[in-house]
Amino acid sequence: MIKRNIYGSISPGDYRYWIEEAAFFLSENGATRYKLKVEAALARILYRRGLCDIGIAQEIKLACNRVTTEEVYAEEKRIKHDIRALVNCIRAKVSDDAKPFIHLGATSFDIIDTANTARYNDFIGQVFLPALIELETALIDITMRYAGTEQIGRTHGQYAEPITFGFAMAEYVSRVGGCIIAIEERASELVGQFSGAVGAYNASSILFDDPEEFEAEVLAELGLKSASHSTQIAQPEPLLRLLFEVIATLGVLANLCDDTRHLQRSEIGEVSEAKSKEQVSSSTMPHKDNPIGVENGKSMWKIVMPKIITVLMDQISEHQRDLTNSASGKTYPEIFAYTFYTVKRLTGIMEKLVVNEENLKRNLASARDSIAEPLYIILASLGHPDAHEKIRVLTLEAREEQKSLVETAKADTELKPYFARMTDKQKEILSGRSKYTGIAEQKANKVADEWAARFGIESRQKKNLGGEKRKK
Amino acid sequence: MIKRNIYGSISPGDYRYWIEEAAFFLSENGATRYKLKVEAALARILYRRGLCDIGIAQEIKLACNRVTTEEVYAEEKRIKHDIRALVNCIRAKVSDDAKPFIHLGATSFDIIDTANTARYNDFIGQVFLPALIELETALIDITMRYAGTEQIGRTHGQYAEPITFGFAMAEYVSRVGGCIIAIEERASELVGQFSGAVGAYNASSILFDDPEEFEAEVLAELGLKSASHSTQIAQPEPLLRLLFEVIATLGVLANLCDDTRHLQRSEIGEVSEAKSKEQVSSSTMPHKDNPIGVENGKSMWKIVMPKIITVLMDQISEHQRDLTNSASGKTYPEIFAYTFYTVKRLTGIMEKLVVNEENLKRNLASARDSIAEPLYIILASLGHPDAHEKIRVLTLEAREEQKSLVETAKADTELKPYFARMTDKQKEILSGRSKYTGIAEQKANKVADEWAARFGIESRQKKNLGGEKRKK
Amino acid sequence: MIKRNIYGSISPGDYRYWIEEAAFFLSENGATRYKLKVEAALARILYRRGLCDIGIAQEIKLACNRVTTEEVYAEEKRIKHDIRALVNCIRAKVSDDAKPFIHLGATSFDIIDTANTARYNDFIGQVFLPALIELETALIDITMRYAGTEQIGRTHGQYAEPITFGFAMAEYVSRVGGCIIAIEERASELVGQFSGAVGAYNASSILFDDPEEFEAEVLAELGLKSASHSTQIAQPEPLLRLLFEVIATLGVLANLCDDTRHLQRSEIGEVSEAKSKEQVSSSTMPHKDNPIGVENGKSMWKIVMPKIITVLMDQISEHQRDLTNSASGKTYPEIFAYTFYTVKRLTGIMEKLVVNEENLKRNLASARDSIAEPLYIILASLGHPDAHEKIRVLTLEAREEQKSLVETAKADTELKPYFARMTDKQKEILSGRSKYTGIAEQKANKVADEWAARFGIESRQKKNLGGEKRKK
Amino acid sequence: MIKRNIYGSISPGDYRYWIEEAAFFLSENGATRYKLKVEAALARILYRRGLCDIGIAQEIKLACNRVTTEEVYAEEKRIKHDIRALVNCIRAKVSDDAKPFIHLGATSFDIIDTANTARYNDFIGQVFLPALIELETALIDITMRYAGTEQIGRTHGQYAEPITFGFAMAEYVSRVGGCIIAIEERASELVGQFSGAVGAYNASSILFDDPEEFEAEVLAELGLKSASHSTQIAQPEPLLRLLFEVIATLGVLANLCDDTRHLQRSEIGEVSEAKSKEQVSSSTMPHKDNPIGVENGKSMWKIVMPKIITVLMDQISEHQRDLTNSASGKTYPEIFAYTFYTVKRLTGIMEKLVVNEENLKRNLASARDSIAEPLYIILASLGHPDAHEKIRVLTLEAREEQKSLVETAKADTELKPYFARMTDKQKEILSGRSKYTGIAEQKANKVADEWAARFGIESRQKKNLGGEKRKK
Repeated sequence: MIKRNIYGSISPGDYRYWIEEAAFFLSENGATRYKLKVEAALARILYRRGLCDIGIAQEIKLACNRVTTEEVYAEEKRIKHDIRALVNCIRAKVSDDAKPFIHLGATSFDIIDTANTARYNDFIGQVFLPALIELETALIDITMRYAGTEQIGRTHGQYAEPITFGFAMAEYVSRVGGCIIAIEERASELVGQFSGAVGAYNASSILFDDPEEFEAEVLAELGLKSASHSTQIAQPEPLLRLLFEVIATLGVLANLCDDTRHLQRSEIGEVSEAKSKEQVSSSTMPHKDNPIGVENGKSMWKIVMPKIITVLMDQISEHQRDLTNSASGKTYPEIFAYTFYTVKRLTGIMEKLVVNEENLKRNLASARDSIAEPLYIILASLGHPDAHEKIRVLTLEAREEQKSLVETAKADTELKPYFARMTDKQKEILSGRSKYTGIAEQKANKVADEWAARFGIESRQKKNLGGEKRKK
Repeated sequence: MIKRNIYGSISPGDYRYWIEEAAFFLSENGATRYKLKVEAALARILYRRGLCDIGIAQEIKLACNRVTTEEVYAEEKRIKHDIRALVNCIRAKVSDDAKPFIHLGATSFDIIDTANTARYNDFIGQVFLPALIELETALIDITMRYAGTEQIGRTHGQYAEPITFGFAMAEYVSRVGGCIIAIEERASELVGQFSGAVGAYNASSILFDDPEEFEAEVLAELGLKSASHSTQIAQPEPLLRLLFEVIATLGVLANLCDDTRHLQRSEIGEVSEAKSKEQVSSSTMPHKDNPIGVENGKSMWKIVMPKIITVLMDQISEHQRDLTNSASGKTYPEIFAYTFYTVKRLTGIMEKLVVNEENLKRNLASARDSIAEPLYIILASLGHPDAHEKIRVLTLEAREEQKSLVETAKADTELKPYFARMTDKQKEILSGRSKYTGIAEQKANKVADEWAARFGIESRQKKNLGGEKRKK
Repeated sequence: MIKRNIYGSISPGDYRYWIEEAAFFLSENGATRYKLKVEAALARILYRRGLCDIGIAQEIKLACNRVTTEEVYAEEKRIKHDIRALVNCIRAKVSDDAKPFIHLGATSFDIIDTANTARYNDFIGQVFLPALIELETALIDITMRYAGTEQIGRTHGQYAEPITFGFAMAEYVSRVGGCIIAIEERASELVGQFSGAVGAYNASSILFDDPEEFEAEVLAELGLKSASHSTQIAQPEPLLRLLFEVIATLGVLANLCDDTRHLQRSEIGEVSEAKSKEQVSSSTMPHKDNPIGVENGKSMWKIVMPKIITVLMDQISEHQRDLTNSASGKTYPEIFAYTFYTVKRLTGIMEKLVVNEENLKRNLASARDSIAEPLYIILASLGHPDAHEKIRVLTLEAREEQKSLVETAKADTELKPYFARMTDKQKEILSGRSKYTGIAEQKANKVADEWAARFGIESRQKKNLGGEKRKK
Repeated sequence: MIKRNIYGSISPGDYRYWIEEAAFFLSENGATRYKLKVEAALARILYRRGLCDIGIAQEIKLACNRVTTEEVYAEEKRIKHDIRALVNCIRAKVSDDAKPFIHLGATSFDIIDTANTARYNDFIGQVFLPALIELETALIDITMRYAGTEQIGRTHGQYAEPITFGFAMAEYVSRVGGCIIAIEERASELVGQFSGAVGAYNASSILFDDPEEFEAEVLAELGLKSASHSTQIAQPEPLLRLLFEVIATLGVLANLCDDTRHLQRSEIGEVSEAKSKEQVSSSTMPHKDNPIGVENGKSMWKIVMPKIITVLMDQISEHQRDLTNSASGKTYPEIFAYTFYTVKRLTGIMEKLVVNEENLKRNLASARDSIAEPLYIILASLGHPDAHEKIRVLTLEAREEQKSLVETAKADTELKPYFARMTDKQKEILSGRSKYTGIAEQKANKVADEWAARFGIESRQKKNLGGEKRKK
């Protein structure tokens, strides 16, 4: 076994952000394992179709189980061709009788593209989507827990109108939820191929009268289907769409990271990442408490997002294919691996997110001017012909006089008749006694419930708190 | 009307690649028209819900019909806010009674994001998809016409195995077809919004008990639906997915352009773009005949493709939104506009593509070594334990001796028994008397038929040629 | 003159962010004007070398002055070749005697690439760099004015150690200054070309014995030089490097925008953009006061930055050139135009930036823990073997007990001997009586002075305030 | 030592394209080694300035030599801070007396950014530039060897005018040469920093009266200089510019790969990559001979080029820094590593490039129409008022009549007087007896000589061939 000190690695994905359960699929070993699976599946179908007997198919399967990536690389070094090297390694482990049936009728990319489709598909289904559902669960929990906890809404980084913290988090329940659905769909549209050197089934046509059927059978063995047309390689768009959707998902997470990061600013302090007693935040400022988890998430996005350009450039392959997408195609697993890491890490952060309700209240209390909107809306609904401009000017006036806006408005002669006609509910809102949070709480719960139902998530909130009322 | 010499434009999309039917939707005038549509729809729903009477809704609608982009910009210059400027322009055209109901309960991005969703949706449905279907039709025509016309397949730019030219074009029928379906789906998933300044329906909650219903009614007026959650802005992912798919479509076209470009190389000469008698290809080389149409298509892709980075960065908007996606969001129409231009231009090229059958034959004839694959496959299927390596070595030998491979193989003692056991069909293939094109012809026709049926395309081929047999 | 309502434009750079002084160079009219300049320069050199007489050179020059972009486009529509169309338009305005000398020995890209080099060079020198110097001046002014105004430094969005606001701004004086120098250098390295259809001076070799000399003379006429090698086109790297540096400059400005944006957050409030009395910030929240100028700057960066991918892809041109960089090359002026707009707008914002000194003080006062660093450094310098860890633990302790860190530290038995050995200066710092801002003030002034000297900027600060002491 | 089977790696840069001599600098081990170098340099300066005695500085240096990445990661796992972990590991290896002086006055990024600057600088100087010079040498050799070997020039993939193969290769001598110079310059502009937690030298100001001097001394110890301003981190632009230039260099190589790839097309066959007897090119087509080396080079570019987006996004760091550039910054070594791999591989290919002179001749002979340009130029120089259009029409005519263009032209009545006035040299060119390659040969040699001189390269050509005439 060729081993290396892991810190001899150049890519941070191979020393700092490497995760075993992702590498099982995404490493070169994972690639080899799936290529061997395809070769074994091929042998099995050759047997089923009567080209060889079952003993040969089994012999090949057993050989495939025993080939290692090391062997393949050693052979490739000699003959300079990766798949032929793989084939030679299998050949070396079977009898002469079995040899002709290894790889028979296949071209390299029948194996490679099909193997990649199969392993990405398995990675998504077995590891990635479950992790995303875990994150979605954590987000649903926070949304429910804080559905009624008031927070000042912010646009342009400025105080806008009040919402609830659960409502703010429901945004991510909804967006992450949408991504999960899209990823499931895109993964289900992946295609394999077994159409030969130029896609026209030239070789398999010699062996079979129904080469498309043959292709379908091999792919079915791996749980895959074929495209309506292939060249030497599978159409790039299905995989492109999946990779794009993974990147878009990381974009949603990057937005969540930025929001969480800014809410941790010293002046805002509405949330913080849970830290251990031993944790150091600065090598020179012993007091620092930094949002490093979500900073890392944002940084991961900066690593992964531009890779969409690589994948988009790989759409172009001349004629029945050129090889300029080979090395670049080998980097696609990084897209999955970094995103997976971020999903896992963010889940941990969200599960333990510390919400500082005191600061939420303090900030909300500072946002006195946000009363301007309901005041304008009420005046307009009562028929004031220029309510927006009126309030805008009054706001400037109130600021100058250091009075509250409602006070100033009440004192305004022109507005007196409108105040006289206001309903009690309207007066409650302007007085601040009634919350001006719209349907934030109700919506937060609705979004959480809908997505929990959609994914069959039993919320920890519900589980733990039982009948207890959700926090308001 | 503020006019400018069109060559005062900086973006080539505004002088060289500007198309009227796209600009109708995608220009700033198009943007204004749709924003006014949304304001009129809002007034209509306010009437339906009894907040104002029908005369006021109609008055507002008529005013909306008369507002011009010029007026809005002039007002914006004064007050520095685009939507408030639009509102003021409508206000200036209605009675005082109607004024309070303009924009009532809406925030700027209720108007802007909803208007953009509506106009992109209309652009896709009314102009873009029909154009793509035209292109698909042209591709289906070529595929059918040349379904049986032999061509040497190429991988790595090297002669591989024979296919047919129709089969090569069927690749694009299939990939463009897949893109059409994806674009339709993504467009149908676009969402509008009417959820107020921070997404929690704060203002509309003052006016209505069922603000989500109110939102749904306004959007329905425009043929749209809402998302499961909004902030001040609509969730970015649905539009991102549509824009991505448009870019991926252009990627497929770029690949088609590259293929067509290389097939026009002087040494290959299998196709060419139809040219007029007046056309000049070089300012100094009067003889040149350049593939400028498909070169242009590739170049368009280089303009448009990187814009995905802009859209991906715009996914991130802090808290209930920041404005850092505003200017960048205004450039999204360029993605549609350049791609649309390329679709139109490429349709023209494909409809008149000149196919040089003589050169197709000449190149195929040069590719004598491609017999190596069937020879290896046949030997392996007859049980030769190392057929691939055997033939690889024989190929080098044949080249050295300047003999044909089959000749060399037949002379090889070890192979004699295998030749003796070959079937007639196998011998036909090796002799070159029988085509080694797999199921290329059949597959070309199948792909063409399937996609034509899917999109209800009546192929010109079928139409024009009637019962006449497809060209072989 | 072909005119269009400017709001028929699709690119926001052509309606919303279009600036006359940039368009003079960067529009299609600008492109035409420079191409005609090159043709006139060519005629002049043909005369100088005795191929034609001076009257002909002058006739051509006069004709070049009169050709319009409209004419060229009309002719191009007929013959489908842009430069031949230009040539024909000049031809139509001269006598038959002059006709053979128009464009003689040139290929299209001798004209196009040389013209673009010349106009970008002029744009940079005459418009862009002066605008950047204006911005640098505004930044130097702020730096000097607030060199001594304390601010809490922030890392990770968390309070770190104190600096001064002028020091924070000096960062941008230094980074923008570095960009100005780099842009000047890169612009000076731009190359033109006059080496014919394949770069080997084939045509000009027929006309002259010293075609490289001939090239040098034509280029000198335009203030340019040649590369060490050209194909049909100029080497892409010199222009690529310039465009990259412009994009990197916008990256620095985007950082400045983000900093300024966050300092305007409601909770921070250290700066704000000056606004007019009429300005509206929200269509529904009359009280809002948004940082739209710097939000716009960030958004511009999101438009422009990804265009580097287009330019990097255009590096590749097959053999002696292909045309796949033609349409994409026409979009380069957008990089200049958007960046120029941002430089101008940001200059206006920085010149009138409102600094809220009260909030600066308030925030600094909240950052009590930042004393942790000097405490640790002092203890370490006094020989404490584990000062960092000691202070980290004490910080947690102090927080729990709601005491100040220094208080807690003084009460600590282990630390008593160290406190006893502290110098007066050290005690002053720990007591908060002496500022712990390092050399922030001195450095701010030094940076401002150095860059002002480098660019010959006479600071408004110095000019206006005369001998008055800089604000502290 | 934590080891892993190298095929457990996810990034192809860590199993397939990993090179020892690059990893020495670019791996995590390399990063650690340089961070320790900086800590040791700091201790040395603390001694020089009298804060500690020489024994302590030496003790620290020895400890730094013994710390391993494994230890640091183990400690980081405990305390969650990378640099504090490194410091603790050094601390564990020194006496209590030395402990306070480790890292004294430094913040994490004083160490990290300075270490990275130093190691990238060393990598460039010691490994990368020497490799580029090797490649440049190989390119110069080819250029000289084939300076006079005729080749048909190609624009738009179409035959244009003749050049020489050496001239075509001289393009890359010149462009790669320009990149080498630019990389040298950018590397020399890299900056380190030692300015503390917020860049204002807060901590070092407690220790020293001249903290900028102190910074300069530490950096000088590592062969570096400081920027005019830092925050917690070094200004990003100097490193950005270096990384960009490396990417631009790879762009030039990608262009070289594409050219070489297309010249290997079956129909063109002017060059090929040398292959071993054992090499397999296809797993199913034993006869294939693919341009996999240059395909790989192009693919590498697709991996690396988009990474510029990551680096450009990392320009933005809020206030005195945020950490969102930390993970992403760890991927920069990949840019160097992949490019380095490509430079090495391409050098091997170019050193053994097989040039097929027969095919060069064959293709040139097919390009009969390229005579159109000299014919037009000669006619124009003889005063024909519309020579270009005349020849364009004659070309179409000649094609129709399947005659040569010169023949057709000679037969044209209008042109007779011009033919009569042609010089002998002109007639020679039109007859094809004299080469129409401009100054291709002379230019190829000139470019090769100039760049060889610039880099002090003694060409193998000259060395091996001695006085022998260069191949023509």
